[in-house]
Amino acid sequence: MREVNNVLVKIPVTEEEAEALRAAAPDAVFDFAAPVGETCRLPKTPKLEIAADRVAKADVILGNVAPSLIAASPRLQWIQLGSAGYEAYLTPGVLAPSTIVTNGTGAYGPAVAEHSFAMLLSLMKRLPAYRDNQRAHAWLDEGMVSTMAGARVLVLGAGDIGLCFAHLCTAVGSMCVGVRRHVPSNLSPKYAQAFERVVSLEELAQELPQADVVASFLPSSAETRGLVDAGFLGSMKTGAYLVNAGRGDLIDQAALRAALQEGRLAGAALDVTTPEPLPANDPLWDAPNLIITPHVAGFWHLHSTLESVVALATENLNRYVRGESLKNVVRG
Amino acid sequence: MREVNNVLVKIPVTEEEAEALRAAAPDAVFDFAAPVGETCRLPKTPKLEIAADRVAKADVILGNVAPSLIAASPRLQWIQLGSAGYEAYLTPGVLAPSTIVTNGTGAYGPAVAEHSFAMLLSLMKRLPAYRDNQRAHAWLDEGMVSTMAGARVLVLGAGDIGLCFAHLCTAVGSMCVGVRRHVPSNLSPKYAQAFERVVSLEELAQELPQADVVASFLPSSAETRGLVDAGFLGSMKTGAYLVNAGRGDLIDQAALRAALQEGRLAGAALDVTTPEPLPANDPLWDAPNLIITPHVAGFWHLHSTLESVVALATENLNRYVRGESLKNVVRG
Repeated sequence: MREVNNVLVKIPVTEEEAEALRAAAPDAVFDFAAPVGETCRLPKTPKLEIAADRVAKADVILGNVAPSLIAASPRLQWIQLGSAGYEAYLTPGVLAPSTIVTNGTGAYGPAVAEHSFAMLLSLMKRLPAYRDNQRAHAWLDEGMVSTMAGARVLVLGAGDIGLCFAHLCTAVGSMCVGVRRHVPSNLSPKYAQAFERVVSLEELAQELPQADVVASFLPSSAETRGLVDAGFLGSMKTGAYLVNAGRGDLIDQAALRAALQEGRLAGAALDVTTPEPLPANDPLWDAPNLIITPHVAGFWHLHSTLESVVALATENLNRYVRGESLKNVVRG
Repeated sequence: MREVNNVLVKIPVTEEEAEALRAAAPDAVFDFAAPVGETCRLPKTPKLEIAADRVAKADVILGNVAPSLIAASPRLQWIQLGSAGYEAYLTPGVLAPSTIVTNGTGAYGPAVAEHSFAMLLSLMKRLPAYRDNQRAHAWLDEGMVSTMAGARVLVLGAGDIGLCFAHLCTAVGSMCVGVRRHVPSNLSPKYAQAFERVVSLEELAQELPQADVVASFLPSSAETRGLVDAGFLGSMKTGAYLVNAGRGDLIDQAALRAALQEGRLAGAALDVTTPEPLPANDPLWDAPNLIITPHVAGFWHLHSTLESVVALATENLNRYVRGESLKNVVRG
């Protein structure tokens, strides 16, 4: 049993979910940042501000609080992030040395994968051009389209999200190859259903020229930053598609613009860019056959994502109080 | 054996495909309207014009020729349409009484289904709004999205195309109910894989209020014209999606505009309208949460569709010459 006195809940929860959290730590005082039970879950509501003293009091935080507010709080035993990304919290000085971090991996797969899949299909069917024509009231045929049936899809970052994406692609007749930074020997059987095979990043060069679609869900790391440069794009099949819903710094955006302008790629879809937000005067906005969405594939735009995050936080709070090991530990 | 003297081939074919056609009717003279082997298959190329005397000479036509050119030619024994639609050829006076008509059903399922599926996903993820934002260089969050996972999809017109569409939806986690004008007792097992059940048009009223998505691939008939009127739209679930890739006259467009403007529907996607082309001043173009594509889901925008059409025409020519029964007879 671990002692938990103050739990700051930054994730919006329903009455029922709040009850389940209280039941997990009956002796703790709960501070709910968002009014419990209010349907304030819409991403369009302004981001919740929270006072520094409420953060300083917490020995457990459920949800993302600005790293600057945490200020290496010595009280903070554990933070359960709502996000899959956690890089900002590992910067030296953000957390006290003993603070445990768990993240939201597993909750975002369905949402990010389906958004990426929708962007890819939209490119294949030339829907952005048809949207422009519609706004101009123009009934205009945009020509040949592509299909997922029989397409060879290379999935960079074959973790939870990449696996969900590959499941969707395989379900509609594509053939997927996964690329992971490190391929564990004990991959779950789910991988065999979704991927023809999973290879390591070292084998990328052999796989790249054969792919009709390259989709990345890679996090940012020294190995991945700038990976998609002119050489990478030049190795891709002419007429292939690129999708990025991982991190924006994967891509050399000037090289991508050139590949699109020269028509070497059939299209690209980005939910992430460098920087974010993308400045209004960035030439990337106007690159041909490019879809940009403003880092919305994940977050809580799909109601079920938030439900999964709350369920994970509740399970981990139960585990934490009982002194059991936590799920999704990224620092501990 | 049936005697075939002159075959007019209106479908563009490769050298190899031309050889297979010639082999099917070795005694016939072939008139290829499109230069054989030229990659003139792009829909953007102007529609092939053909002189009336070449049509008058043919006793078999493979492909669509303007009904006015046929002028009830007494020589014409059989026309194999490239299209699934055939209504225009059944108008009295177009064909001689004995002329057999076969259509292209079966070739269009994958293309029309995937285009419709892409439009639906695009609506669910608000991609048209993100496209508009992109053109304005605006990094703007458009809020909550929907998912195919767990969605209940009602497919009107559960024939070849509807079946393909249901397969895609089921593959990504939706539950499909099919609606057919007439439900045969011997539905192929493929239907059981794609549909939870298939009901007749009479049962529509019970199914409509439960569907998250209503997608139609119905041809035009007395039963279907105007079927989607204010009453139909009013029976749909609030926040549901409507997709039409069948015929434009299914929908009362003024009623659809009202439903979209009032936000009762979350969105609609139309590949067909009334009339076509939709006039530039039609208010439908600007209805909110609406996608319009200019009747491009089928045709030959997907290369594999044309290959399927040519394969069907070749098989039917073999059957015709041998005196066997033809596939896809719609008048015979």
